[in-house]
Amino acid sequence: MNDFDTLRRLLAEDRSIRRFDASRPIGRDVLSRLVDLTRLCASGRNLQPLRYRTAATPEECDAIFPLLAWAGYLTDWPGPAPEERPTAYLVQCLDLSLASNCLCDDGLQLQAITLGARALGIGACILKAFDPGKVAAALGIDTERFMPRYVVALGYPAEEVMLEDMQGDDCKYWRSADGTHHVPKRPLTELIIS
Amino acid sequence: MNDFDTLRRLLAEDRSIRRFDASRPIGRDVLSRLVDLTRLCASGRNLQPLRYRTAATPEECDAIFPLLAWAGYLTDWPGPAPEERPTAYLVQCLDLSLASNCLCDDGLQLQAITLGARALGIGACILKAFDPGKVAAALGIDTERFMPRYVVALGYPAEEVMLEDMQGDDCKYWRSADGTHHVPKRPLTELIIS
Repeated sequence: MNDFDTLRRLLAEDRSIRRFDASRPIGRDVLSRLVDLTRLCASGRNLQPLRYRTAATPEECDAIFPLLAWAGYLTDWPGPAPEERPTAYLVQCLDLSLASNCLCDDGLQLQAITLGARALGIGACILKAFDPGKVAAALGIDTERFMPRYVVALGYPAEEVMLEDMQGDDCKYWRSADGTHHVPKRPLTELIIS
Repeated sequence: MNDFDTLRRLLAEDRSIRRFDASRPIGRDVLSRLVDLTRLCASGRNLQPLRYRTAATPEECDAIFPLLAWAGYLTDWPGPAPEERPTAYLVQCLDLSLASNCLCDDGLQLQAITLGARALGIGACILKAFDPGKVAAALGIDTERFMPRYVVALGYPAEEVMLEDMQGDDCKYWRSADGTHHVPKRPLTELIIS
């Protein structure tokens, strides 16, 4: 398979995962390998102002989990049950001593991280619905210098996710009776404007 | 080579390119393949509010080029000479009818695009230093609905770019006498905070 096809397959397989196998830990060495990928990303003005707090112990995971909101469209689902919870997290932080914003570095790096996770068989979910101050406090992050911006939840996947063609303009994902998570995506024709 | 190593190699090869072979055009079908990769990216609230205007004709490229600022740290370089200019562009726009911001979707998608370009042997440079209204006017983009956020310049590379270990806190890239472009990157130990 050529590089483009490999990349396309990885992107297709790299779905937001929200139910994990809580019995399978992720080592801190794996988290380091994922952060190492972000070193290679382009960076606005080459400032590279993003940092990562890794969390991989049960204690750290227990401290973060209750601070995160999951899957806004699944209103009758309170989030992963204990046996489905992530077994590691990366907290992406902005180094405020370097910059007050990071342009699009956040997404550039998060894409590298989730693709890297996927390539290792690990599922990821990028989360934004949390109170940065509370996450920082839970992990002892000094918010005078480092401000949490995104949390990446990680674990071995315990759910199936399927891409679907979007019908009309309804972008809400859903679960079918068999537990599969379905994610509607806009057609290419809608993405290219003239 | 396994998926992780392939991804890591692609990320390492995917450097911001600012000098291209202006004699080699890029077809609109290639631009479509790159935009198609963005369909597969995660999206905040799954809104998918980003759109792309493609530019691939000499007339379109000539209209955009003078509106872009290149390589802020290379103060004695006015940007690519005519024979080094990009031969295509993707203008990433936010659909204002759907959202007033895109969270980190911009970077997630730009990473997919530049990796995809690299996999096809094409160099890319993500540009932010431009007036969105002027770029929109040059391409006839209706800013009542679509607001340009980033421009990706594309072309077959005509420069070498090397990653370097950053010395101290100096993040400025530079060119050596042989024309090679050098980009200092922070060490992994600096990226992981405790």
